[in-house]
Amino acid sequence: MLMYSFQVGVLGATGAVGQKFIRLLEDHPWFTIETLGASKRSAGKKYKHAAHWIEKTEMPARAADMTVQECSPEQFADVDFVFSGLDSSVAEEIERAFAEAGIPVISNAKNYRMHDQVPLLVPEVNPEHAALIEKQSFTEDGSGWIVTNPNCVSVPLSMSLKPLHDAFGIDSLVITSIQSVSGAGYPGVSSMDIVANVVPYIGGEEPKVETESTKLLGSLDEDSIAFEDFTIQATAVRVPTIEGHLLSVAAKLKGTPSLEEVKTAFTDWDNPIAELDLPSSPSTPIRLYEENRYPQPRIHAEREGGMQTAVGRLREGTVMDIGYVTMAHNTIRGAAGGAILNAELLAAKGYIS
Amino acid sequence: MLMYSFQVGVLGATGAVGQKFIRLLEDHPWFTIETLGASKRSAGKKYKHAAHWIEKTEMPARAADMTVQECSPEQFADVDFVFSGLDSSVAEEIERAFAEAGIPVISNAKNYRMHDQVPLLVPEVNPEHAALIEKQSFTEDGSGWIVTNPNCVSVPLSMSLKPLHDAFGIDSLVITSIQSVSGAGYPGVSSMDIVANVVPYIGGEEPKVETESTKLLGSLDEDSIAFEDFTIQATAVRVPTIEGHLLSVAAKLKGTPSLEEVKTAFTDWDNPIAELDLPSSPSTPIRLYEENRYPQPRIHAEREGGMQTAVGRLREGTVMDIGYVTMAHNTIRGAAGGAILNAELLAAKGYIS
Amino acid sequence: MLMYSFQVGVLGATGAVGQKFIRLLEDHPWFTIETLGASKRSAGKKYKHAAHWIEKTEMPARAADMTVQECSPEQFADVDFVFSGLDSSVAEEIERAFAEAGIPVISNAKNYRMHDQVPLLVPEVNPEHAALIEKQSFTEDGSGWIVTNPNCVSVPLSMSLKPLHDAFGIDSLVITSIQSVSGAGYPGVSSMDIVANVVPYIGGEEPKVETESTKLLGSLDEDSIAFEDFTIQATAVRVPTIEGHLLSVAAKLKGTPSLEEVKTAFTDWDNPIAELDLPSSPSTPIRLYEENRYPQPRIHAEREGGMQTAVGRLREGTVMDIGYVTMAHNTIRGAAGGAILNAELLAAKGYIS
Amino acid sequence: MLMYSFQVGVLGATGAVGQKFIRLLEDHPWFTIETLGASKRSAGKKYKHAAHWIEKTEMPARAADMTVQECSPEQFADVDFVFSGLDSSVAEEIERAFAEAGIPVISNAKNYRMHDQVPLLVPEVNPEHAALIEKQSFTEDGSGWIVTNPNCVSVPLSMSLKPLHDAFGIDSLVITSIQSVSGAGYPGVSSMDIVANVVPYIGGEEPKVETESTKLLGSLDEDSIAFEDFTIQATAVRVPTIEGHLLSVAAKLKGTPSLEEVKTAFTDWDNPIAELDLPSSPSTPIRLYEENRYPQPRIHAEREGGMQTAVGRLREGTVMDIGYVTMAHNTIRGAAGGAILNAELLAAKGYIS
Repeated sequence: MLMYSFQVGVLGATGAVGQKFIRLLEDHPWFTIETLGASKRSAGKKYKHAAHWIEKTEMPARAADMTVQECSPEQFADVDFVFSGLDSSVAEEIERAFAEAGIPVISNAKNYRMHDQVPLLVPEVNPEHAALIEKQSFTEDGSGWIVTNPNCVSVPLSMSLKPLHDAFGIDSLVITSIQSVSGAGYPGVSSMDIVANVVPYIGGEEPKVETESTKLLGSLDEDSIAFEDFTIQATAVRVPTIEGHLLSVAAKLKGTPSLEEVKTAFTDWDNPIAELDLPSSPSTPIRLYEENRYPQPRIHAEREGGMQTAVGRLREGTVMDIGYVTMAHNTIRGAAGGAILNAELLAAKGYIS
Repeated sequence: MLMYSFQVGVLGATGAVGQKFIRLLEDHPWFTIETLGASKRSAGKKYKHAAHWIEKTEMPARAADMTVQECSPEQFADVDFVFSGLDSSVAEEIERAFAEAGIPVISNAKNYRMHDQVPLLVPEVNPEHAALIEKQSFTEDGSGWIVTNPNCVSVPLSMSLKPLHDAFGIDSLVITSIQSVSGAGYPGVSSMDIVANVVPYIGGEEPKVETESTKLLGSLDEDSIAFEDFTIQATAVRVPTIEGHLLSVAAKLKGTPSLEEVKTAFTDWDNPIAELDLPSSPSTPIRLYEENRYPQPRIHAEREGGMQTAVGRLREGTVMDIGYVTMAHNTIRGAAGGAILNAELLAAKGYIS
Repeated sequence: MLMYSFQVGVLGATGAVGQKFIRLLEDHPWFTIETLGASKRSAGKKYKHAAHWIEKTEMPARAADMTVQECSPEQFADVDFVFSGLDSSVAEEIERAFAEAGIPVISNAKNYRMHDQVPLLVPEVNPEHAALIEKQSFTEDGSGWIVTNPNCVSVPLSMSLKPLHDAFGIDSLVITSIQSVSGAGYPGVSSMDIVANVVPYIGGEEPKVETESTKLLGSLDEDSIAFEDFTIQATAVRVPTIEGHLLSVAAKLKGTPSLEEVKTAFTDWDNPIAELDLPSSPSTPIRLYEENRYPQPRIHAEREGGMQTAVGRLREGTVMDIGYVTMAHNTIRGAAGGAILNAELLAAKGYIS
Repeated sequence: MLMYSFQVGVLGATGAVGQKFIRLLEDHPWFTIETLGASKRSAGKKYKHAAHWIEKTEMPARAADMTVQECSPEQFADVDFVFSGLDSSVAEEIERAFAEAGIPVISNAKNYRMHDQVPLLVPEVNPEHAALIEKQSFTEDGSGWIVTNPNCVSVPLSMSLKPLHDAFGIDSLVITSIQSVSGAGYPGVSSMDIVANVVPYIGGEEPKVETESTKLLGSLDEDSIAFEDFTIQATAVRVPTIEGHLLSVAAKLKGTPSLEEVKTAFTDWDNPIAELDLPSSPSTPIRLYEENRYPQPRIHAEREGGMQTAVGRLREGTVMDIGYVTMAHNTIRGAAGGAILNAELLAAKGYIS
């Protein structure tokens, strides 16, 4: 296994995504947290006093006693790069400031996902898009750059589409994403709204779901991504689950593959980054369940450390060619864990030094 | 308002649907329960000792003290017709026996829904299909017949499609139904399976959803129904809600109506049975919500006595022409209440005497 | 039945309790809402634009089109009295201002509950405490006064204790209240905290539960209440239910009644306000369930319009004399509905004119 | 660390507790599953075909391919002892048969818990009770015996009482246990009963809770246990949590310790089996939370592999001396994990060979 040693910072460290970064990095073999950044309100406090810890595991002792810094590049002079779990309301400005200061930003925020030179990266889907980093102009010497991971729905969507895209091509998709409350952060969704209920709307979600996968599955042109030309129609609803977004997908493919050929596309798919053996990489990135009643968010979202994408109920369709469900852990694979895997890929490819 | 007085029986009276019949009929202006039927195990007991009552309202005192009978026509000699909440495992045989004995059966069971001469009836959608009764041959004199109401998902689906069908025609539909636990009866879904979870499969549900609406929106031919020719692709999942199934619908219409025209189709739609002023008929059978976050099962399923179908999030689609969600109370509108409204329509049309 | 006609105002009209007042007063035979008051932020807007409506029933059309006023007495010149659903952070000052301006206040807020001359009133428990009104000195002529209803846990607690108090006397109580999320208002409890979880603490709740019932069951002295001398030890926890607080009660009584005598105390108890036949008065204020598995919040909280207190699992204890559970609807009986019943009692007793 | 190598059997292997045994034993350093036993219906099938697997982790591959045996001693000739996750309806007879055949039984079933010579064992509470094994007469040579672990509520109760018992003595307890659905097995509690609800009764639970802890904290006499003489009054309710029972405890102690002394009793308590360093032993068996809002079942039940008992909200009482809440994972610490820890203790003490 490759071995590196990098000092990292976490921006937005007190929020739900920031907490997940801190938990997942606690014993990371390559990355050590050097600096935690949050809002002015938290700056100057010990992390244990600044954060309302909502993770199931104990707050890591080392982070607990770190003093929270403001999110300005000067406070992060000692880090090799930063993870950003910033709220989108502040991410645009802060992330640019870090990149311009020569500090790479590996971000979970949405702000730069659609930027022409910013890779929207899922290592198993489009590792080659990492090369876009070289086109970024935040600094003259290229030392500062931004890489993003997609929305928590686009992760299982793009991962489940990847084998289909490679084998057949995608024509169009109709999906309904059935999303857990952790996707809205903390305190997020009111219990009065969601206990024993479904809310048929998640603000701003559907446009992200309808566009990000076409960039993720797009091809790298000279200095930007040529989006794939398929169309997605998305409906996003909230249900009272804690972790794991489940998507009901109806897909029209190119060509007319048989159901057996579609299954084979999933089972024969080769993980393009398997040989890198990255620390957070699941051994089976896409797990195809044969049992009708699987996958289920509460039971399966944490498989392989929350990094596996599940696919199930694969069957022929009547309007579209096929139907299936796919599910992934929205705050690990779909957020902090995805960003960490991105960092591992970028380290292995030599972009971080 | 029309006034009638009929004595009715309830088959499957101890089950979840049977209980709903008993509750909804407690103060019904036309129908009085005369006989309650259930399995051999319950027969001979007082209803209050035979039923594990799960309704939120008190068990009606009159029903509580009735002695449960076996479900054989001889025990129901004094009724004008029966409501059937029988389990499908026994409904086929028992309902036929009643019809052959000259006792009309208004059934919630699935067994005869696709029978050529049996109307699958939603009063606001296809009241004219009631005429199929005259083609039935269970008895020589036509005194015994069967009428069914559709699956609890097909009710809001067909009701929401009716205005679109009439105004434009339907080409195809991709839907995901997000269903509450009451749809599985009692004890039904294990809490271990569904608390804070989504189960992406409901046995036998999708084929019903994919076919029933094409019969409901079909046209009455000489002695059967010519099914409409649109296609439905359905995915049915279970979530931890109690009552109310919510459907995410993507619809391709005939013609290319604007979103405004589609909205107008809903708002200008005329309820074909409005003038009958049936006791269980909602004043607004289809309610179009403008607020993005509505409708919600826990908040809106009980509107208009649980008989209203809600539509919301109506918007242009990218793959199909439009997207919307629709929701109805699955055990009232989608089961017992729907059957009672069918009985009211049939009484008003003179089929019951 | 008595008949009155009063114009009323609602303070805190946009909040969760305020909304419940508006819903419950929609068709009230005695009280008509004349003015709605809320914070400066809402003042000047139509109610339908100012309130995030969370009730299951439609917003009453009349209220929807009323213009919200600031909560100052000048805006409420035309009302006979006001209901207060104000937050405790502002209730003290505003309610005093109304009382001093000669406008009676019937409040759900906690601020004046322990005030010497303010009745803490549950009509079935201590209707005679209403006479304390005459001792209040907010105005010289006695036209302005304040009456409060207790905390939502103290309502079923005091109601279930009343028959025991009258028959035997109470020595001490150990209770655990298992409370629904609506008790915290809207948005209140984060779904991340409570879905599939128990939170073993509710800020400020236990002291209220431990004191209010001793005032409620106290005796009216010349110009204040002599608290009863029993002791309560309370633990308050939150669970993912929507409405209905359920209390597990262990009670040491005075004397050593048999279980049968205790049962009889409940079943023979006479509702002291029965003969007034108040519009919101339940026909059976205390319902004793014999079935072990009852009462349950989701099933029984709405019985008798949400105004009934349920008692169940009555049994001999080992440490204390008896054990039982009691449950009531926390936002109806335990809040807005309780205040309305208080107003009805006060009208019937001639305090409102 | 001690090292042993034992072949074990699991009785009731397809049930919820049996599955937990199989998961927890998958990588156990001392115990290797040799034989799986279940009912006649399952016998002869591969485990993967016989069990409806409900664990969140993958079914262990080795168990999956084992052929299920009937629960008769002849089929278990090769094991050193068996774990029993049998239903109480069959456990009495089967466990006796195994003990009489010379196969030690470490059981989670309730049947022998109150047997005079059967230890009811929680290693941190009463490890010395293990010596009762020598008094058992199932076999002449003492090779067959039965050891049980207590009810899932009695585990956190007895563990939280142990420091109080040792420091002060217990006089009496009033407790309300707020229990998760997994306590009822699978399918167990109907979702219709428990989603957004509380059920105030769990059949047979309270008597167990009221007696077992007095045996656990009792003293070993010559050939039986002298029960401690304190009294428990228990109420057991069900809520929609998945794992983790939370108890609200009010305790009267002997003597009149200050709150500070009580806290010290917890923090200074020495785990009597710490020096054995058993594989499943938590490093902190009793964790005292200072934060009011902790412990919570969904967040903390899995701490230390689900083997830690949490205590929180420790405070002075008004009726009893103190109040606190305690919580433990009901299917790990309170069932299979507790039995495995018992086996580890018994191995370390030389009872298994």
